[in-house]
Amino acid sequence: MPKQTIGFVGLGAMGYGMATHLVKTGYKVHGYDVFPASVERFAAAGGIPASSLRESAEDKQFYICMVASAPQAQEVLFGESGIVQYLPQNATLIITSTVPAYYVQSVANELVSRNRSDILLVDSPVSGGTFRAAAGTLSLMSGGSEEAISSAREILQDLSDENKLYLVPGGVGAGSNMKMLHQVLAAIHILAASEVIGFAARLGLNARQTEERIRSGKGWTWMLENRFERMVAEDWNPGASALTIILKDAGIITTSARQANFPTPLSSTAEQIYLAALSQGYASKDDSAMVRQYFPTPIADVASPADIDTESAFQLVLDLSLGINLVAAAEAIGFALHLQTDFPQFYDLVSNAAGGSRVFNEHANEMRDGLGEKGTTGETLDEAIARLEKVVQKARDMHVPLHLGNAALSVLLLARRRVDGGVPSTGVVRVFS
Amino acid sequence: MPKQTIGFVGLGAMGYGMATHLVKTGYKVHGYDVFPASVERFAAAGGIPASSLRESAEDKQFYICMVASAPQAQEVLFGESGIVQYLPQNATLIITSTVPAYYVQSVANELVSRNRSDILLVDSPVSGGTFRAAAGTLSLMSGGSEEAISSAREILQDLSDENKLYLVPGGVGAGSNMKMLHQVLAAIHILAASEVIGFAARLGLNARQTEERIRSGKGWTWMLENRFERMVAEDWNPGASALTIILKDAGIITTSARQANFPTPLSSTAEQIYLAALSQGYASKDDSAMVRQYFPTPIADVASPADIDTESAFQLVLDLSLGINLVAAAEAIGFALHLQTDFPQFYDLVSNAAGGSRVFNEHANEMRDGLGEKGTTGETLDEAIARLEKVVQKARDMHVPLHLGNAALSVLLLARRRVDGGVPSTGVVRVFS
Repeated sequence: MPKQTIGFVGLGAMGYGMATHLVKTGYKVHGYDVFPASVERFAAAGGIPASSLRESAEDKQFYICMVASAPQAQEVLFGESGIVQYLPQNATLIITSTVPAYYVQSVANELVSRNRSDILLVDSPVSGGTFRAAAGTLSLMSGGSEEAISSAREILQDLSDENKLYLVPGGVGAGSNMKMLHQVLAAIHILAASEVIGFAARLGLNARQTEERIRSGKGWTWMLENRFERMVAEDWNPGASALTIILKDAGIITTSARQANFPTPLSSTAEQIYLAALSQGYASKDDSAMVRQYFPTPIADVASPADIDTESAFQLVLDLSLGINLVAAAEAIGFALHLQTDFPQFYDLVSNAAGGSRVFNEHANEMRDGLGEKGTTGETLDEAIARLEKVVQKARDMHVPLHLGNAALSVLLLARRRVDGGVPSTGVVRVFS
Repeated sequence: MPKQTIGFVGLGAMGYGMATHLVKTGYKVHGYDVFPASVERFAAAGGIPASSLRESAEDKQFYICMVASAPQAQEVLFGESGIVQYLPQNATLIITSTVPAYYVQSVANELVSRNRSDILLVDSPVSGGTFRAAAGTLSLMSGGSEEAISSAREILQDLSDENKLYLVPGGVGAGSNMKMLHQVLAAIHILAASEVIGFAARLGLNARQTEERIRSGKGWTWMLENRFERMVAEDWNPGASALTIILKDAGIITTSARQANFPTPLSSTAEQIYLAALSQGYASKDDSAMVRQYFPTPIADVASPADIDTESAFQLVLDLSLGINLVAAAEAIGFALHLQTDFPQFYDLVSNAAGGSRVFNEHANEMRDGLGEKGTTGETLDEAIARLEKVVQKARDMHVPLHLGNAALSVLLLARRRVDGGVPSTGVVRVFS
């Protein structure tokens, strides 16, 4: 069966990868972007250039919207030249942009109020980065009516890895909420990568050796592994993953959390530091440039001098990573439970995508199920507190900021006011329950 | 009766004021400082210059140590030229520096181990700023043995206002702990002053009008009133109250809190932002320069334009101040209760000193006593959350960081996980219990 014809808007880093992959897979893709250069690049890669939103939408039974934000999506869909007025009857509209759940639900309502309830709306944010976008192996979190999902399914499957198309129950908004929960971990881990490696540099540790040891051990996060090369090469201009992107996602998290009256102290701390960096001119730089908030010169220049105790220093760095990752996992899991998310799906998604950490992957289920007498982390809440306190004190003595380390410690200590210090350290999740 | 002869070390902003006031009161004060210019200035004001630590200490039955930090005090007391070796038998040693309680307790131990237990040690940090130092109207928080306090009492009284000599029960360390608890509010309110006025400027509000309205209303803090003129004049070089001073005090708070396993999320947030400013070169600047973390140009240049809704904007600024001050009060009170501090004394001290805020002054006792059905704040916890959420969302929409506002909201929302949202807003203190 020949592949369908698709309209596509938003040919940025992710969108270009997705659209060109669809072209390679056999679709006829009519691509549009506000930047003509992006359209030209797409045409050069075999795509069909559209010269206007209207041209991208007319007669297209399938349409993918991959712009960067909800305001952009609103303009693309319902603005003066908005595509909704041009889409044919019963078209399938797939929004792959990362937007708040309440926004995509407002799109469904606006389609009704504009007498276009014939349009089949799929809420399907993605995760995985530009490489997986171009390879068609993204993780997709898709919500919508049965009819809409069924219509979009082949395209969704072609964009995603075999096991990474998550059909999220709950209709339009459920996909975006799942992505938002995933981004709780992503938003924290991105800043944590800079905080951990910046702290290591302050301690005089060689960056590459530190990253290799953390990657191969309990402190691993997908984000640290992914961002490290750009961090060490200072490959920031323009950013492969611009600060503004994760800042936008952090805003979706904290705004959604406020609507749900749910605390997200680490996401919020990360967001505030991203905002501070924004005002320092980091908007378009790669988010791995956040290492500058912790270390003033290139980390590549740090070579462990002979006179430092490398093992103790490394232990501090590892403990910082573990402490942040523990509380990050608790925050994301607490929020997921609060939103009554399908937990196995949430776990499967996060542990196989950019939000993954070894701490999350190994202990998330214990956090959900509650605590046995013996936890799987091998340490009590009091022991986790003691380890992180040592790190935070060392950084303080050295006048090094540790925004997330300190925020994580506050959460652990607040948890300690509620539960006995002898429970397994995963018990920190109870502060959110 | 003629006044005694006193040795004095540390003729900085506070020490100079205190020492010259003692001179005016009739004491013979032999002053020393590592900076010769400070000694000369003191001599010009009628003080007796000491050319060495030894000269400042020999034959002085009374000695005041007003250096800036515990490491400096350690050097002055027990270093190679340390004064303890030169003080006469049964001398009275008053440490007015702000140091951690555990440090001043270590001084008591070291006096014993050096066979100088004859020295009467008084732990007596001060509060009130340079003006009150020079006027002899400081607040003093004094701990020590009955004999030591009795010996030092006339000097302590001469340094302090009539009702502001607080004899803190608990011996050496109790004074420093009381000061530390006071500084919880000071450290938070100093950053809050910049956050509140910086946010007002971002909203387009005239700074002076905003400050006047906040000062005369529920949002008042001693720190905002005190720092505002320097903030608006950008009178920062060198600082009347250098960033490093409040940063040191914040470090005493968070280090003491870690030792007590007690969470201080707002103090910790403030400390991290002070540390970030330190690395941006603000060390010696006045702490009111923290407004630069929130607004990039002089706030004096902001004149409310005609097209903004001044009343709604002001309400947001006021709500920010109220939200921060509420959680700051809860954090300080929770910590004070945890340390089993003499609460009426703590309340009297804070409400009449630099840590005061209208929120603290009016609602602290309700926070201690627990909650009646009707609180005195006139609003429920859920209402306080809703107000602060609106502020935080507005700032987020404008890309303005609100470090304390967001941290305060996280604490309120974490409290909301423990107590019913219908309790009076002072119920936030229960998150610390």
